[in-house]
Amino acid sequence: MDTVRLGIIGFGAQGGYYSRILAAKMVPGMTLGAICDIDPARRDAARGQYPDVTTFDDIDALLASDAVDAVVTTVPHYLHPEFAIKALTAGKHTLVDKTKPDLTFAIMFNQRTNPLYIELKQLLDSGELGALRHWNWIITTWWRPQGYYQQSEWRATWGGEGGGVLVNQAPHQIDLSQWLCGMPKKVFAKLGFGFRRDIAVEDEVVALFDLGGGATGSFTTSVHDVKGTDRLEILLDGGKIVVDNSETVTIMRFREEEQVASARTTPESTKRLFAGENILGDDFVTTETKTYHSVWGQQHATVLTNFAAHILDGTPLIAPGSDGIKGVRLANAMHLSAFLGAEVDMGFSEDHFLHELNARIADEGKFDLQPE
Amino acid sequence: MDTVRLGIIGFGAQGGYYSRILAAKMVPGMTLGAICDIDPARRDAARGQYPDVTTFDDIDALLASDAVDAVVTTVPHYLHPEFAIKALTAGKHTLVDKTKPDLTFAIMFNQRTNPLYIELKQLLDSGELGALRHWNWIITTWWRPQGYYQQSEWRATWGGEGGGVLVNQAPHQIDLSQWLCGMPKKVFAKLGFGFRRDIAVEDEVVALFDLGGGATGSFTTSVHDVKGTDRLEILLDGGKIVVDNSETVTIMRFREEEQVASARTTPESTKRLFAGENILGDDFVTTETKTYHSVWGQQHATVLTNFAAHILDGTPLIAPGSDGIKGVRLANAMHLSAFLGAEVDMGFSEDHFLHELNARIADEGKFDLQPE
Repeated sequence: MDTVRLGIIGFGAQGGYYSRILAAKMVPGMTLGAICDIDPARRDAARGQYPDVTTFDDIDALLASDAVDAVVTTVPHYLHPEFAIKALTAGKHTLVDKTKPDLTFAIMFNQRTNPLYIELKQLLDSGELGALRHWNWIITTWWRPQGYYQQSEWRATWGGEGGGVLVNQAPHQIDLSQWLCGMPKKVFAKLGFGFRRDIAVEDEVVALFDLGGGATGSFTTSVHDVKGTDRLEILLDGGKIVVDNSETVTIMRFREEEQVASARTTPESTKRLFAGENILGDDFVTTETKTYHSVWGQQHATVLTNFAAHILDGTPLIAPGSDGIKGVRLANAMHLSAFLGAEVDMGFSEDHFLHELNARIADEGKFDLQPE
Repeated sequence: MDTVRLGIIGFGAQGGYYSRILAAKMVPGMTLGAICDIDPARRDAARGQYPDVTTFDDIDALLASDAVDAVVTTVPHYLHPEFAIKALTAGKHTLVDKTKPDLTFAIMFNQRTNPLYIELKQLLDSGELGALRHWNWIITTWWRPQGYYQQSEWRATWGGEGGGVLVNQAPHQIDLSQWLCGMPKKVFAKLGFGFRRDIAVEDEVVALFDLGGGATGSFTTSVHDVKGTDRLEILLDGGKIVVDNSETVTIMRFREEEQVASARTTPESTKRLFAGENILGDDFVTTETKTYHSVWGQQHATVLTNFAAHILDGTPLIAPGSDGIKGVRLANAMHLSAFLGAEVDMGFSEDHFLHELNARIADEGKFDLQPE
């Protein structure tokens, strides 16, 4: 195989977007193989835009055909697992926007291809700035008005979607937090269920992550801040990083590890500090600021390119399913902590989580329970 | 009485500072009545600077004299309660930098006189911006190098000081948080004890406050960030406030409460939102930015002036002891939560806290236990 033919499952906003990226030839090694949608009007639209591409009205028909080598699912979240299992069973490589535990495939964690976060991860992984002390991310730029939740019956329900901002909007930052700063040992979270939206699930989250050895992470997200904040701060032994709006990075590098310099101070030098002297010297901190500009489609095109390259020649995946499960575990841990009103050890049993989730699905009375 | 004669107990850096504020006639209704210090060199310095002011080498002698009507204590924290009780028993009005529960007097919460926080409190109390959703304060500008902790045996010990950054540096912001945003119902905190300093007590704090009804507060403080952050963000139903460096305030006022505007949206208008349209209108948010400049001595002079006015004519105190206890309860709750590894209800018993504190004082083996 020298080209991967991709089937788009669901020709809504996201499916249309992926089609345009492929049509724009932004993904080496991949072509648009087929489009599948149950809605006749959408199939008409697809044929109008891509006359050479076969359309299907049913996922089973698409998978039974030889039109595609791989699929990307852009359907309601609750259909992802079912469709992904169908596609994998039919021998198609599979890329999903979000995932569920125990399925292994690639995930559209497009922010992992953002040059800002790639360079930030390289800096953190290099060890140049030493061990982590704490991070704090306020990511409330996910404003969703009430009309958004009226789009469908399954949205923002326990049975249909399995949660709110933690499973729909914030998974990208939840993944980035662990990709950049590591998985926590314990999680404590406060969730507001229907706090400022008329929904069953969480529209507001504040959480503390215990990263072990005294290091911590603080995470705030919500869907009701019309002037949302996106501010990530990371303090390390040898430096400090502030990321504003996922666009501007300020890197403060220390001449040596802060506690090494601190250990040489004395009561006498502390007096000079309180008198206003910079006792570590003006060259102790070197500050660098970088601004990144995003290019339309580039992040998703990079994930698709990587997905194609993995299928074609085994290039390691940017976001394999085995990594995706970390973010899912974190979201589940935040849910479970809020359900129990207690800190949760990251060794928690998935059955415990499902049991609590199913209690809420049962109360809701609109959807089938999850298999425990 | 038409003038309050103030006795300065302890002529170190802080006592010298208060003396200069009084000598500069920045405090109407108050004069420098006496200076007390056990150190002969400091008494000599005091006589050199203020030849007309009586000095004492012993607090009991000062209190037995008729030289002062009121005192301010600027001694090691562990002596505050003892000295305050002595002063109150001797019939002197008393102002302390920090306090302990069950003593009732004024507290040097000078930040309550900062015009920035006064105007912010007025704005919040006015109700113009509606109910609180969440606040997040990162206050890590309290950098203290190791030499600071070598100044004395009692500093940063359980028996001598009773804690670290929560009892020494951050009480001002802990007080402001509850003064501005109200007391929480429950507190969960992670404290790093000797995390990046060679001390017994906490040098790192992250905490979640449950304010009831889904509203929350997130609090981060530490003494080991050489490039400390001071950033307070408050989200409300009708607006959002960001305070940078206790100096710049950005107030975003919404045309109406956010959830009222949200409730009028539809699936159709949400599609226009995702297509990039500002569906609430460009006039939905009005942004105002104010910058405040601090004047040397002004905050402390204002607290002293208020203290004098309260003594002279009953003017309500800016920070009565009964308010100070709220900050102490909050600090104790954060300690107790970290000791227990669990969320603490703000109705916790002070005996429970003292019992846990005494266990740590006993382990330390250097100081007497606190009375339980």
